[in-house]
Amino acid sequence: MKVGNARRNMDPDFSELDAALDDRDLDGYLIDADSTEADQYYLSGFDAPDPFLTLYDGEVHLLFSRSLEYGRANKEARADTVERYVDFGYQSKVEEYGPREAVSRVIAAFLDSYDVESIAAPPRFPLSTADRLRDRGVTVESDDESVITELRATKTDEEIEHIETAQRANEAAMAAAEELLRESRTAAKGQLLYDGERLTSERIKEEIEVTLLGHGCALDETIVACGSDAADPHDRGSGPLRAGEPIIVDIFPQHKASKYHADMTRTFVVGEPDETVAEWYELTARAHAAALDAIEPGATGAEVHDAVCDVYEEAGQPTLRSDESTETGFIHSTGHGVGLDVHELPRVAPNGGVLEPGHVVTVEPGLYDPEVGGVRIEDFVVVTEDGYENLTEYPKELVV
Amino acid sequence: MKVGNARRNMDPDFSELDAALDDRDLDGYLIDADSTEADQYYLSGFDAPDPFLTLYDGEVHLLFSRSLEYGRANKEARADTVERYVDFGYQSKVEEYGPREAVSRVIAAFLDSYDVESIAAPPRFPLSTADRLRDRGVTVESDDESVITELRATKTDEEIEHIETAQRANEAAMAAAEELLRESRTAAKGQLLYDGERLTSERIKEEIEVTLLGHGCALDETIVACGSDAADPHDRGSGPLRAGEPIIVDIFPQHKASKYHADMTRTFVVGEPDETVAEWYELTARAHAAALDAIEPGATGAEVHDAVCDVYEEAGQPTLRSDESTETGFIHSTGHGVGLDVHELPRVAPNGGVLEPGHVVTVEPGLYDPEVGGVRIEDFVVVTEDGYENLTEYPKELVV
Repeated sequence: MKVGNARRNMDPDFSELDAALDDRDLDGYLIDADSTEADQYYLSGFDAPDPFLTLYDGEVHLLFSRSLEYGRANKEARADTVERYVDFGYQSKVEEYGPREAVSRVIAAFLDSYDVESIAAPPRFPLSTADRLRDRGVTVESDDESVITELRATKTDEEIEHIETAQRANEAAMAAAEELLRESRTAAKGQLLYDGERLTSERIKEEIEVTLLGHGCALDETIVACGSDAADPHDRGSGPLRAGEPIIVDIFPQHKASKYHADMTRTFVVGEPDETVAEWYELTARAHAAALDAIEPGATGAEVHDAVCDVYEEAGQPTLRSDESTETGFIHSTGHGVGLDVHELPRVAPNGGVLEPGHVVTVEPGLYDPEVGGVRIEDFVVVTEDGYENLTEYPKELVV
Repeated sequence: MKVGNARRNMDPDFSELDAALDDRDLDGYLIDADSTEADQYYLSGFDAPDPFLTLYDGEVHLLFSRSLEYGRANKEARADTVERYVDFGYQSKVEEYGPREAVSRVIAAFLDSYDVESIAAPPRFPLSTADRLRDRGVTVESDDESVITELRATKTDEEIEHIETAQRANEAAMAAAEELLRESRTAAKGQLLYDGERLTSERIKEEIEVTLLGHGCALDETIVACGSDAADPHDRGSGPLRAGEPIIVDIFPQHKASKYHADMTRTFVVGEPDETVAEWYELTARAHAAALDAIEPGATGAEVHDAVCDVYEEAGQPTLRSDESTETGFIHSTGHGVGLDVHELPRVAPNGGVLEPGHVVTVEPGLYDPEVGGVRIEDFVVVTEDGYENLTEYPKELVV
């Protein structure tokens, strides 16, 4: 059973945004970004590669600098109004004031046309736009609570379906990667060979990428890291892969049609793992299970993270909790939200807040040491009314 | 022969940045962004998916919130120093002031450790960081000249090689797309069939993407737009493709290893184009040639754009120059720079400034009307000491 809190089907529910603006006595919320900024895509419902403005004042109003996106926005966007700079006399303002001041006057006129004199803006709102609007008498406050980012943390049924679609693609890609490892053979010095050639990180990444493409997903990066590469949690990995060493495969694709992500990590050893790696894997599996056990509505991300640290520290492994400057052991947080961004709220980390039904979070404990390599196991789950549902349907087996 | 102004091999030459800071009597330049922001990648030389800080004060200093990227940055980045929040007492500041103020105090301490009391920041620098630093007494000025973006416009030999590598991949992908069109056959109502199935925009995009992946390139979007889709210059296109209608194929991949882009558009008709499309294509080819003729050091982007408008207007086509609110005819600018961003300086547009050797720009005139469809031809060139060199080696043939 899925979470029962589907509060919207097609359109987001912005009532918490209304409340936040009321609380702060501000007229509107303004975003100036392209749609790779997830808050922009979420608020505007429009996908564009170049920055545009979205004003929320109870309705959604889009403003484009150029005519280029205007026609498409009229067709595709969920906005109440779509306008262009030229609709606010851009060209004559350029002649009178020059291009830079013309833009600030156009944006001010756009706000004024909706009687908006004061706005909240996301923490990463462009400084230049803010300073220009302030120069024109508009109150601009940084929304350090990131209210839209907070809204995005809680997923509807429809969003969870998008994430599951991405995850099924992810599992197909992981299976393709594992298959290459399984079908490789071991040559001199532990070097893996596939189809007569040295099996490399790059070769497996290509297999992953082609599989994901065939499933409608894109991705910027994949991690396939072996040996000392794997000891650095965000090293993407490169070069030949070897038997007996842990190989971390971390895949986090974006489904292109919906823009939602999935995120999963497995660690594989071809052949016989050494004793330390086998111990680390067993310990990490226990830490993983402890974290999942801790997930329920009302628990905090900090408590889930602590459950992982407890398991590791009891086994004598360093963590950032026991030593904030350690570079070996458990040297990252337990997890993060997944949605339009691959890293989003809530945090499953020190300071991580209360988990609520509809939150989608990764659980990814791991251990790292350049002398040994790295081990990480990552599933991701949706918090339900009475616990969680694991969205990951991929086995966890170290040895292939 | 390539441009002769290779001013750097591995490391950027930041002397113009030094001059800009001197002019404005500011101590440093600060970027707070992930490396998808090209100025950040250019200044830091470091590729990271999450935001980090780069301070330039004659040297390059990186600051990471978490330990995660620290190890990798120490290995990979071109920076003079790499530091973490914990190096500035982050944890005790969190306990004393809470997480939000702790961050601003850490960043202020980082700047103070280099005696930096005043900074310039890019126009899209995060409002929240700027306001917090101002609260702590740091002078923060928006660099509306975008000095680093300006620096990036002029490419070295090495950067042009990266761009050419991306373009060779692009040409392989365009050839794969054209091949599918060539090998398709026409069924009832002009529907194209390939291998017994309806040939769609999606099918050709998949062919393009797989080809690019095999050449080490990634891409977010590709345009394969037929009929009325093609009348909207940035419509990505979808659904069945038909004989006799113009099909715009616009590919703009990023080479993953270097992060540099290429950009090329061709328009194809399978079978017999109608008279208007044939006329538009011939006219657009003439506009394209006129733009190339106008490219040389000292010419402005505005002059190159005007050369295109002249050709179109003389033939009776509307342009944004003749009618700023037209939605048919030539409704975008002539071109843009290409590099770490697919759209960057210089502009080949109204207000476009002086072209200099090492500038890499697209030339992409086109005509659009929902009643007809769209036609666009795009090459991209590097400005040389005495003219330009076309980086595009792909034929221009309308009919396949």
